Amino acid sequence: MKEKIYTACVIVIGNEILSGRTQDVNIAYLANRLNGLGVRLCEARIIADDETAIVEALNACRVRYDYVFTTGGIGPTHDDITPACIAKAFDRPLVRNAEAEAVLRSHYGRSNINEARLSMANLPEGAKLIDNPVSRAPGFQIENVFVLAGVPVVARAMFENLADHLKGGTPVASRTVSALVPEGEIAGDLASIQARYSDVDIGSYPFIRHGRLGVSIVARGTGEVILDSVAQEAADLMRARGADPSQIKTN
Amino acid sequence: MKEKIYTACVIVIGNEILSGRTQDVNIAYLANRLNGLGVRLCEARIIADDETAIVEALNACRVRYDYVFTTGGIGPTHDDITPACIAKAFDRPLVRNAEAEAVLRSHYGRSNINEARLSMANLPEGAKLIDNPVSRAPGFQIENVFVLAGVPVVARAMFENLADHLKGGTPVASRTVSALVPEGEIAGDLASIQARYSDVDIGSYPFIRHGRLGVSIVARGTGEVILDSVAQEAADLMRARGADPSQIKTN
Repeated sequence: MKEKIYTACVIVIGNEILSGRTQDVNIAYLANRLNGLGVRLCEARIIADDETAIVEALNACRVRYDYVFTTGGIGPTHDDITPACIAKAFDRPLVRNAEAEAVLRSHYGRSNINEARLSMANLPEGAKLIDNPVSRAPGFQIENVFVLAGVPVVARAMFENLADHLKGGTPVASRTVSALVPEGEIAGDLASIQARYSDVDIGSYPFIRHGRLGVSIVARGTGEVILDSVAQEAADLMRARGADPSQIKTN
Repeated sequence: MKEKIYTACVIVIGNEILSGRTQDVNIAYLANRLNGLGVRLCEARIIADDETAIVEALNACRVRYDYVFTTGGIGPTHDDITPACIAKAFDRPLVRNAEAEAVLRSHYGRSNINEARLSMANLPEGAKLIDNPVSRAPGFQIENVFVLAGVPVVARAMFENLADHLKGGTPVASRTVSALVPEGEIAGDLASIQARYSDVDIGSYPFIRHGRLGVSIVARGTGEVILDSVAQEAADLMRARGADPSQIKTN
């Protein structure tokens, strides 16, 4: 029986990314961590802070992937519309979550709590909190959707609090073989390696370094021995072109 | 009559981004440039090097937005499947493009041209070439879809070659007002500013600097005078909390 492949999607809710003001870094972080946990990130979307866009993306992705992670839009200001949109997508009422309210009241204290801050406790009915050790206002989970903050340090801390509870499969391992060879010189031979190793996903990623063309051949799969063979063959191709390949191995 | 708003979507075709191996930088570049040209980036998707995923995303996005830009998958190796997928999405045959072939033959010369490199001239019928001044192999355009390379320096050069021909509207200008004030302290007042300026999109972006909470209030819109007013009011809110706001103006 084939092992189940666990899949995920990240939805970045972020006008500030789409305007070019901010470089997203949450996708790369989640991609790395999820892959290490045996969950394959299959898609990421960056969408506007717009109810229709959020509801539509969420409903398209949550039926397609095992896990959906959203980042952004869960703060105390008027543009933080993620919880209301997620409630709408799940057709659940937005209610004052007592546990979240207690966390916020305890953190801010009587003198600093206000309506805007309390609004962060308005969550879809049945939401399960995700602890936020950095700035306290919690994220939350509903079914297979995990709602994280947008600020990278907070998004990461929230993810680390839930990572242990995610069920994954065998992590995809990889071998990367890089050299200063133009990929067009080895493309034919590389295709024939790929044809012989159908269980391995072989990618070819060109780069330019000090004005010279190089390529990284990345072999990804779950069989360590077979990955070593592919890496060996790719390195041999490069050596045959007079290059001196370097290798990186990840699990 | 309201001015037409030009919209765009970026589709990053990139297993290497989804695996966490590579940090995407093309989205931020295109976001900045498009917004400067009066074209609003409304969505970005990062999808796998997979025919079904590419065809589906492309067909969903090309009817929805004025422009679609793809990055990645147009090289000479077996994993460069973008042109074939775009042909399929448009239901056009993949044909040898004579102009692209001439470019490639001239660049590589008789001794370095090979089948893999020539395969980069296999493009959807009717494709219009986008010049690649860096590594010569061209990108291409079909209808409202612009197909760019994945390597950032190449993607940028291709975009700069087509940027002058893109029709856009009035660029969205912005004012950013930042200070070391927690956004929860000004959220209520900020909401009332937003309520009074419905033509301006006011975003609140918290940050953590040297362990202290701060916020950037970003006002975006096409009316310079009104943006100045919003920025002034946001700065006043911050000063009323004893902070010393700094301002950035674009356009």
